[in-house]
Amino acid sequence: MPQLGLLHGRAWTVFLGQLRRPPGAVCIRAVRSHSQVAEALFASQLKPQEKSNFIIKTPKGTRDLSPQQMVVREKILNVVVSCFKRHGAKGLDTPAFELKDFDIAGQFDPMIPDAECLKIMCEILSELHLGDFLIKVNDRRILDGIFAVCGVPESKFHAICSSVDKLDKISWKDVRHEMVVKKGLAPEVADRIGDYVQCHGGISLVEQMFQDPRLSQNKQALEGLGDLKLLFEYLTVFGVAEKVSFDLSLARGLDYYTGVIYEAVLLQTPVHAEEEPLNVGSVAAGGRYDGLVGMFDPRGHKVPCVGLSIGVERIFSIMEQRMKTFGEKIRTTETQVFVATPQKYFLQERLKLIAELWDAGIKAELMYKNNPKLLPQLQYCENMGIPLVVIIGEQELKEGVIKLRSVPSREEVAIKRENLVAEVQKRLSES
Amino acid sequence: MPQLGLLHGRAWTVFLGQLRRPPGAVCIRAVRSHSQVAEALFASQLKPQEKSNFIIKTPKGTRDLSPQQMVVREKILNVVVSCFKRHGAKGLDTPAFELKDFDIAGQFDPMIPDAECLKIMCEILSELHLGDFLIKVNDRRILDGIFAVCGVPESKFHAICSSVDKLDKISWKDVRHEMVVKKGLAPEVADRIGDYVQCHGGISLVEQMFQDPRLSQNKQALEGLGDLKLLFEYLTVFGVAEKVSFDLSLARGLDYYTGVIYEAVLLQTPVHAEEEPLNVGSVAAGGRYDGLVGMFDPRGHKVPCVGLSIGVERIFSIMEQRMKTFGEKIRTTETQVFVATPQKYFLQERLKLIAELWDAGIKAELMYKNNPKLLPQLQYCENMGIPLVVIIGEQELKEGVIKLRSVPSREEVAIKRENLVAEVQKRLSES
Repeated sequence: MPQLGLLHGRAWTVFLGQLRRPPGAVCIRAVRSHSQVAEALFASQLKPQEKSNFIIKTPKGTRDLSPQQMVVREKILNVVVSCFKRHGAKGLDTPAFELKDFDIAGQFDPMIPDAECLKIMCEILSELHLGDFLIKVNDRRILDGIFAVCGVPESKFHAICSSVDKLDKISWKDVRHEMVVKKGLAPEVADRIGDYVQCHGGISLVEQMFQDPRLSQNKQALEGLGDLKLLFEYLTVFGVAEKVSFDLSLARGLDYYTGVIYEAVLLQTPVHAEEEPLNVGSVAAGGRYDGLVGMFDPRGHKVPCVGLSIGVERIFSIMEQRMKTFGEKIRTTETQVFVATPQKYFLQERLKLIAELWDAGIKAELMYKNNPKLLPQLQYCENMGIPLVVIIGEQELKEGVIKLRSVPSREEVAIKRENLVAEVQKRLSES
Repeated sequence: MPQLGLLHGRAWTVFLGQLRRPPGAVCIRAVRSHSQVAEALFASQLKPQEKSNFIIKTPKGTRDLSPQQMVVREKILNVVVSCFKRHGAKGLDTPAFELKDFDIAGQFDPMIPDAECLKIMCEILSELHLGDFLIKVNDRRILDGIFAVCGVPESKFHAICSSVDKLDKISWKDVRHEMVVKKGLAPEVADRIGDYVQCHGGISLVEQMFQDPRLSQNKQALEGLGDLKLLFEYLTVFGVAEKVSFDLSLARGLDYYTGVIYEAVLLQTPVHAEEEPLNVGSVAAGGRYDGLVGMFDPRGHKVPCVGLSIGVERIFSIMEQRMKTFGEKIRTTETQVFVATPQKYFLQERLKLIAELWDAGIKAELMYKNNPKLLPQLQYCENMGIPLVVIIGEQELKEGVIKLRSVPSREEVAIKRENLVAEVQKRLSES
């Protein structure tokens, strides 16, 4: 994400935050609000010549997590962080520390960072193995254009937009009812909106809207359609266009989006072939919010921004639920080798062995007892999912060997003491 | 760290916190206080049958860090976290989230977890390449024994202990002055104390103290000496005994330590061979605090605990200072490959190429411009320390090749397009 001597900057930020409050969770931080963003932007003092930046916002509050839960959370964060790094993330905060402000990068040509945002979303959601997903895209300018050409008075844009936003939860019939009865929209205007906002499809729908006799008269909408067309071209090159759907009902309640908006939803696999996949909730979202940054530009220029949020808490809850459903066992340590003995007075030999393993970078444990019994030592390995046991006793010491036991197969082989570390490393690299 | 059906537990905790406030730093959290520990213990409700646990406490407050500083901090945390995992850390919080409660593990035989704590300290400090270091050990029971046999009234133990604790900063003469003039100790008592607390050495000093006519009469001191002897035996097996010094002046101001105490200090390399290495400050510390946990045991039993703190802020400041001194350049991204073009209208080809690299897990960047000039692209790679550039232009497209450029050597070779990913991976694995 280079900048290289251009006039204004674009902000490239990634928020790793909450999308919404999962039921029953405590201490959950809400998505970064308009004012928080504004504050962060203000704090950054808009250094237009600085390098673009990723910012990871971790939830301020945390719940008390069990070791199993922490493993799941670490897995999610690892996927997200390594994806960001693959995409040149700079100043990526390790999840240890929370940062508040971000850099502004150079001027970019349209839709290139936007396409990368969507590619990042696809990579993260694929790597998390959450099942099938779809990213809905739309553009605030298209939505505003629709409202304008359908005859919505400008004073009602906001209210009608929030009705449209409900289309992923309630039927068009109910949304129409709300528009007409609660928000006082003329029924024929509502019907015209309905013709648009029930459409979704790929790049062909973008082309179709370009030909639409009413919408093609609206300058704002045409700009939005032009950007979406370009976006779909880049997404096709990235090989992710089939994961993205142009959805004219997508409104994203947040006020600060000014151009392209997107939201990733997980799809439930339909039980019957003819059923449409059900939407089980959004797990990532983002868009452009150029105007907001412009508010703080000393010369009043608009500074384009692209933002992306990953709903870590939401994803965490989904993964946790799946693991419960499928009874998946989660290891709470990464221990690779356990050092055991069947005999008394072998503590020093065990300590010598384990120090050798540690010094070779191998994750190893032993029992903190002078004279443990063998069975509990082996039982512990089975319980904890430790794959290998090295066993030292009198016989082994005399012969200069170590017994190496595979916990899953319970097979044991004698290994020359001097070859132990190499053999353990070989087995671990194969598994 | 198994537990396996025993009566009381031992807590195995690691605090990753602050040791002291580095000068000029803001938002620094102090070391976990007595009451914080007590609270944490209380919250844990002392589940004696649960597995031992590591807890990483990250500083609550953070400073605003530059991307370079974040890289340094991430490096420190990676060393610490991977060391903890190598030692069977369970429930290790990724540095993202802060946890408050910990588990209590099974009954362990003496000094085995304590020796592992010191081994962990040695591994972390070696891997951080902070220069030579020394771990001072002592035992609160030995200190108390010294005070008793030297004739310090029990009411003055605490005050005299805090004077002794200053011996790493001020001379014995000044400490003695404080004891006699400010704290009202008889001069001959102070002199007797001085004979002890100015001693430091290895296991032979432990043996010598066993023979000491006064100290060998004190039951408490003998217990402490017995534990230290065992500790040194295990440290010898671990190959780290030469890094550990029995230092009778080590007091550790904190009240809650009850047995072995330790503190790691960095040593300045002496300019002249005859000079003693100078202590430039403590970077890790820990010890036993059995009694404290006992306070919360429902049956009033003492539950032994081992604790270890790594002074991350202190280490961070030291590393930062060194990097400044030696002018080390720190990369702020991990980008491995930059996708460049010398020609106009090659955006789509660049996007296709970079998507291939991303999909192969390679960290890659491109310029977000339709028609960037070649020189700034190459300049960016040099500035950012990106090692490889892949270049695609008309000629390459026609011939089905990609130019692969090594940034440091500026050498370029043509690679068949279909072999590019493999060649890049080969080069990265070699570097």
